[in-house]
Amino acid sequence: MPEKQTNLAWDTLLAPLRTRGADGGPGMDGPMHRRLARLLREAVRDRRIPAGAALPPSRLLAAELGCSRWVVTEAYGQLVAEGYLEARTGSATRVRGFPPPPPLVPGRPAPRPPAAAGPLLDLIPGLPDLRAFPRRGWADAVHRALSAASDAELGSRPPAGHPRLRGVLAEYLRRVRGAEAAAADVVVCRGIADGIGLVCAALRESGRRQIAVEEPCWAQVRQAANGAGLECVPVSVDERGLRVEELYAYPGLRAVAVSPAHQFPTGAVMAPDRRAALLRWAESADALVLEDDYDAEFRYDRDPVGVLQGVAPARVVLLGSVSKTLSPALGLGWMVAPPDWAARVLARRTPAAAPALPDQLALAGFMQSGAYDRQLRAVRRHYRARRAALIAALSQELPGVRVTGADAGLHLVARLDGPGGAAWGTQVAGAAARLGLRLSPLDFHYHGPSPDGRALVLGYGNLPDHAVGQAAALVRAAVEAVAPS
Amino acid sequence: MPEKQTNLAWDTLLAPLRTRGADGGPGMDGPMHRRLARLLREAVRDRRIPAGAALPPSRLLAAELGCSRWVVTEAYGQLVAEGYLEARTGSATRVRGFPPPPPLVPGRPAPRPPAAAGPLLDLIPGLPDLRAFPRRGWADAVHRALSAASDAELGSRPPAGHPRLRGVLAEYLRRVRGAEAAAADVVVCRGIADGIGLVCAALRESGRRQIAVEEPCWAQVRQAANGAGLECVPVSVDERGLRVEELYAYPGLRAVAVSPAHQFPTGAVMAPDRRAALLRWAESADALVLEDDYDAEFRYDRDPVGVLQGVAPARVVLLGSVSKTLSPALGLGWMVAPPDWAARVLARRTPAAAPALPDQLALAGFMQSGAYDRQLRAVRRHYRARRAALIAALSQELPGVRVTGADAGLHLVARLDGPGGAAWGTQVAGAAARLGLRLSPLDFHYHGPSPDGRALVLGYGNLPDHAVGQAAALVRAAVEAVAPS
Repeated sequence: MPEKQTNLAWDTLLAPLRTRGADGGPGMDGPMHRRLARLLREAVRDRRIPAGAALPPSRLLAAELGCSRWVVTEAYGQLVAEGYLEARTGSATRVRGFPPPPPLVPGRPAPRPPAAAGPLLDLIPGLPDLRAFPRRGWADAVHRALSAASDAELGSRPPAGHPRLRGVLAEYLRRVRGAEAAAADVVVCRGIADGIGLVCAALRESGRRQIAVEEPCWAQVRQAANGAGLECVPVSVDERGLRVEELYAYPGLRAVAVSPAHQFPTGAVMAPDRRAALLRWAESADALVLEDDYDAEFRYDRDPVGVLQGVAPARVVLLGSVSKTLSPALGLGWMVAPPDWAARVLARRTPAAAPALPDQLALAGFMQSGAYDRQLRAVRRHYRARRAALIAALSQELPGVRVTGADAGLHLVARLDGPGGAAWGTQVAGAAARLGLRLSPLDFHYHGPSPDGRALVLGYGNLPDHAVGQAAALVRAAVEAVAPS
Repeated sequence: MPEKQTNLAWDTLLAPLRTRGADGGPGMDGPMHRRLARLLREAVRDRRIPAGAALPPSRLLAAELGCSRWVVTEAYGQLVAEGYLEARTGSATRVRGFPPPPPLVPGRPAPRPPAAAGPLLDLIPGLPDLRAFPRRGWADAVHRALSAASDAELGSRPPAGHPRLRGVLAEYLRRVRGAEAAAADVVVCRGIADGIGLVCAALRESGRRQIAVEEPCWAQVRQAANGAGLECVPVSVDERGLRVEELYAYPGLRAVAVSPAHQFPTGAVMAPDRRAALLRWAESADALVLEDDYDAEFRYDRDPVGVLQGVAPARVVLLGSVSKTLSPALGLGWMVAPPDWAARVLARRTPAAAPALPDQLALAGFMQSGAYDRQLRAVRRHYRARRAALIAALSQELPGVRVTGADAGLHLVARLDGPGGAAWGTQVAGAAARLGLRLSPLDFHYHGPSPDGRALVLGYGNLPDHAVGQAAALVRAAVEAVAPS
């Protein structure tokens, strides 16, 4: 049947079409013309039928396969349309000449194996208690949101977020964080880093070149600022928060990112006079303050400190998210910005930038129903107990330890005697990893050299309660592996 | 009780604390110290207590309010921490001096009113049938995904997307679109514009300055490319798709964005020889092809044309989404990229860039269960019938109309006699709007002047079946309002 010049093993090639298992054998389902097209497509692609080869006349192939001629012409036509074959009037249908086989395909990396499921204990800060994620409550909120939404709502993602969620967030932030916020001031975004990136891009577009960041700070703040084209100016942090007076050393500086409620990673709560001084500097420099309010819902010794934004709403962009209260995997956050800055942020926002609409409506419903407040109250109790247990266990394992930064949030800093530095940090993190423990030395969060001694940032948000003692013992073992006492 | 110098109406100020309704009156719930702090915070913020004013000694105020002194010191302490008050040893607690009231707050724009719910018929292309959105099926998929996910999965958003979804998408694209795709080649993104933006940023970073785009094209392609810093080179489109030979006019050009399965907005299906020529050009120019496969699932006269990416996986980035199959409000899309380009895209991706994890797992489950295929089959039938009805209605209302670009997708082009041009387009769109119809002239999709005559791009994805006749009659009325025949 095949033309002599091509000398193809047509029988082998077409065999899968004849030996039909259930529904045509594995991977060979669907109507005959589609199966034939698929078989030929793969053969052309694999070069089993070479470029220029003529295909059997449709009548012959149809007889061979015991099908109607339409099946064959349909399959050929499909592959002509896709560019695998070419048909010329009065001539056989042939395989089109393609570029040579691309060299990259063989070198294509194999799929990565899933992350090793070892017995690791993870004290890297950043996660809330994932065992406490309200799976049922969130699924119900999505279900209710989808049931109640109008058809039009299901087809749109307003750039600033759904008006209902903006209103609910404004009410929540006024009530819980002392913010000065109306629905119109809220922009829904995909997390704090997303929000910082958006504001930094707006800063860059308005001609600003620099932003002050805390030293040490959350790496994603620096990344978002750099990604937007801003240079980061590091400003020291002590146990009373940002050292505001250092801002005056940079005359052109007109933006600063801070985490006043619970500095990351030192855990310092910004002192009242520093808060006032920061706003005075912002006023004198005509600067914008980015207030990263990432975990202030969790404060254990007293009520959470209200936000700076409530004191100076025209100077401060407040940024928050559900990453520490529900999960970072939801990608739901917000900013409250002065109107001119909100307008600049929205002007450059692409239509697809907002979170999925069902998720936005689910969060609005979850907050309005009181489920969010209940979730916070429940986990706050757990975190308070776990924090106390961890501090007690650390004190027992490492008698000289000084715990700082534990007033709020989901991490603390354990300070030890002896000189610190990047080398010590690298060694202790390595020793911990060998013991099955992930931890992050304070050094790692500095952009420049760290002035601190030996210190570890220990996140306990996702640490199982039963593993607190073990975690403290492993911290000791890691510390002793580097500097035996 | 108050000091003379401040002369404050303390009685009025503190009245809400005394006149307790249910749980302390509207907005005054919670323990006494918190209510007092809130009241004082608002009074300071509103300047009802001026800067510098001394607060009553805690003992006096406690006696006045009939509460313990602890309540007052706690409230004062909270406001000192927040920066509203300042306490100095041996002196009264005073209201801190703040920057003057920010001038921007009064000018803050009022919340925008919701979009007018007029009797508008909308023929702007872009939406699928939102009445057909599988509310129940999607909510169930989210519920199942949340039930089945591990704790660790609930806390992470891998930059390339969840491995399960990547595998499911690879299988789907191989099966339905003839793609050459393994899970490792798939990057989950938030829609096609997001994906184009990511690839364009990678192109820019690798030193490329230009990208060829179809003229006319989807505006978001140009926006995404420009946003990434690339210059757009317009290349003509005719009824056989992109005029590939024009690419040779730009010697340094090494990237092109095309929509071969159903060009937007003309609806042309790229001819087989053009497809082959495009790949030849890409090979000779060492160029990357961005294949926008936005609505190819809907093809009515024959099977969808397989993707270019399947023919040349090392040269083509395939981009798709659920925006036309489910809803753009979900923000779920994908790309299949050659390994080196996928690596470049991922290298610059921020951790928060991927869609919400529950949504990713829901889509994987929705596809694996067969619900996605069923949804496509069901809506394809509807669209086919609606397309036929719209073409018939247009032919009846506008006897000279020529319908093109209707082989696939959710829109068609209605061409009329007479000279076109931006002025005609503006007038007919304006006349349509006055009649309660939104429509988009083909002219509007050109970056430069349009060579076409009078032509309208009519999207019927979200047009109710019962309104097809009315829509066609309104199109005629709008056309006649501009150029009465």
